[in-house]
Amino acid sequence: MKHVLYGRCVRCGKTYEAVPDLTTCECGGILEITYDYDYIKTRLTKETLAGRSDRTMWRYRELLPVEETTELPPLRVGGSPLYEEPRLAKHLGLKKLWVKDDGQNPTASLKDRASAMAVAKAREAGARVIACSSTGNAASSLAGNAAAAGLSTYIFVPSRAPKGKVAQLMTFGATVISVQGNYEETFALSKAAIDRWGWYNRNAAINPYLSEGKKTVSLEIMEQLRWEVPDYIAISVGDGCTIAGLWKGLKDFYAIGLIDWLPRLISVQAEGCCPLNRAIAEDRPWYPMEENTLADSIAVGVPRNADKALMAIRESNGLVVNVSDEEIMAAQKLLGMTCGVFGEPAGVAGTAGVRKLCEQGVLGGQDTVVSVVTGNGLKDVANAIRACGEPISIPSDMELLIKAFQEKGIAAD
Amino acid sequence: MKHVLYGRCVRCGKTYEAVPDLTTCECGGILEITYDYDYIKTRLTKETLAGRSDRTMWRYRELLPVEETTELPPLRVGGSPLYEEPRLAKHLGLKKLWVKDDGQNPTASLKDRASAMAVAKAREAGARVIACSSTGNAASSLAGNAAAAGLSTYIFVPSRAPKGKVAQLMTFGATVISVQGNYEETFALSKAAIDRWGWYNRNAAINPYLSEGKKTVSLEIMEQLRWEVPDYIAISVGDGCTIAGLWKGLKDFYAIGLIDWLPRLISVQAEGCCPLNRAIAEDRPWYPMEENTLADSIAVGVPRNADKALMAIRESNGLVVNVSDEEIMAAQKLLGMTCGVFGEPAGVAGTAGVRKLCEQGVLGGQDTVVSVVTGNGLKDVANAIRACGEPISIPSDMELLIKAFQEKGIAAD
Repeated sequence: MKHVLYGRCVRCGKTYEAVPDLTTCECGGILEITYDYDYIKTRLTKETLAGRSDRTMWRYRELLPVEETTELPPLRVGGSPLYEEPRLAKHLGLKKLWVKDDGQNPTASLKDRASAMAVAKAREAGARVIACSSTGNAASSLAGNAAAAGLSTYIFVPSRAPKGKVAQLMTFGATVISVQGNYEETFALSKAAIDRWGWYNRNAAINPYLSEGKKTVSLEIMEQLRWEVPDYIAISVGDGCTIAGLWKGLKDFYAIGLIDWLPRLISVQAEGCCPLNRAIAEDRPWYPMEENTLADSIAVGVPRNADKALMAIRESNGLVVNVSDEEIMAAQKLLGMTCGVFGEPAGVAGTAGVRKLCEQGVLGGQDTVVSVVTGNGLKDVANAIRACGEPISIPSDMELLIKAFQEKGIAAD
Repeated sequence: MKHVLYGRCVRCGKTYEAVPDLTTCECGGILEITYDYDYIKTRLTKETLAGRSDRTMWRYRELLPVEETTELPPLRVGGSPLYEEPRLAKHLGLKKLWVKDDGQNPTASLKDRASAMAVAKAREAGARVIACSSTGNAASSLAGNAAAAGLSTYIFVPSRAPKGKVAQLMTFGATVISVQGNYEETFALSKAAIDRWGWYNRNAAINPYLSEGKKTVSLEIMEQLRWEVPDYIAISVGDGCTIAGLWKGLKDFYAIGLIDWLPRLISVQAEGCCPLNRAIAEDRPWYPMEENTLADSIAVGVPRNADKALMAIRESNGLVVNVSDEEIMAAQKLLGMTCGVFGEPAGVAGTAGVRKLCEQGVLGGQDTVVSVVTGNGLKDVANAIRACGEPISIPSDMELLIKAFQEKGIAAD
């Protein structure tokens, strides 16, 4: 890969050749893929992008760590819509607000970006089997993207994973191991199994290519905003890989001169599980935490990518905010009713955080904000129904309908 | 609308001015929107399309019945992927097979195309409230598209509607009436309520604009195939509006000379509810049928758009095939494992039909087929789990994992 220099440890600085099955540094640190920006600068410009018809994440191929000859995976990943939301901006008291609906991906979450990258790199490595542990979305995205590419998958999920995600896994033909334990125990079993059987490793903090896939979400946001940098980008945080990837994309575009400055990140975690935000707020190292939130995708008590996530938040001079499950459910309903966007609990936590910062007066009428919705609400229907209630249930009878409307105070015209 | 001539009754031929709140003919027949193809021909060419960056359904605006000044609804509808599936084609013994994954729409079904049109026309009509009855997908798509546009919705669904669809409705803030009865009774109550309160009517067979939205699925297919017409397009059929819309799009493109011939339609219904296919097979008028299938979206015993659907199948010299619930579940798994596409039961019924016709020797190695997947499997997780089974469930322990693999005969490398 002419445009990739090496993988560099974020902890000790040691560099490694960017082979397809690259994992972590011998010191235990996580690697970051480092590019030859001078070379890329000559190839990737606003003009070349404007002339490109490919709307998938691969339209940014010069900034992605794949060989020119690599066959790309089949599913259409990326190119999700960025909606400007003037009514919600007004409601919250913001100058401008955009919602990036990344639930609009093949398996309905942002994780498709990482999994498509995993499939591309597994192909380069000549692997036929890919494995990962996941709170659910990385799993279902890997299973779907691998199935489309004709690769097998072994997937480890905690037993709390919502039914929608498990249904995806089973339909995509993955071998699924539902681990009776928390995410940490799930990760441990996947690691032992990967070590034993030598499967290609799609665990997000282990495989440094995956956040390179995830970063395409911010590349898209910037291009969709026509290179006008917002003040803030808000996103929910679990393992830390996604916010790290998002930040990497912004820095990449900044490095090749496509944007002139960098937005501040807003890291949103659940009150019941916020080890990374706690570390920022208390300005000390992170330490494990219980996993007490209905937002399963970000219920990560031992974040695997704490290093990169904390660096990203700090480098961006970011904000951290924790939201309760009630605030998450309220944000789900608010996004649905105002924007027609249905996100899963973890998917809308970013918006819940923005709302809370608006209410606290931290954000206001001078600010422009992008809120990333990371997964579709259909993945976790039980919690959506908890949040929004049940319909009116009657036989087919106008008198009963009129009565039901009267009882509920519905005017009906 | 300079490019629209009128609405014309498919039964008696009477024509009506194309006002925004157009419904059915006084004879009870369904109207079809009729265009000035000579005018459109001068405006919409392969070249103009190739130069257009809009990838939504509105890229075909010259063939859509909206005013030039109409503000289009916000959600990004259409532009769903068309995947060529060589492995599945080989498995089935077809020359070529493509899967159009229309579950990749904002509310995860093809119905978004009709609902976006409903919102556009409701705006033209100056309406603030839209209503419909639906087996589920028309409902959730209307609720989502209307919410994004700031309009209210009243939605009538039969009580059997899967939880995923109901969760969407509630999240989008619709007033939802779950009718304790079948689709026919649900439709009847919605009609009575619409008559009483004067809401804008999004019932698909009543409002002739909706199939004009749906037809964009075939416009896209043809453009994605670079105007190479397949031998067959297969789709599941319930109310009849979707297959009628699909056919209308093909005829429109044929009329303005963008394609040279027309494919044959494959109408797929459930064995337990196939009034339209039965009418074709027996070559006599349709009559009502029970609604016995797990494919809720096509469980329509009294199809509201039988006229247009039967005309479409006959005009195209189409095939009809009925599939059992077991065949539907098998197709769901086959599409998931081979293509990484997760469709709901009704969504994959088209593929189940293609498979059955291949097994019967009706389709074979000389045929090119497009199979439309009409909705995402996340809408009906319970049936997906029924189709695909449950995962291996163990504590975080390598010995137990090895034992579980041995018991299931999994080689693991």
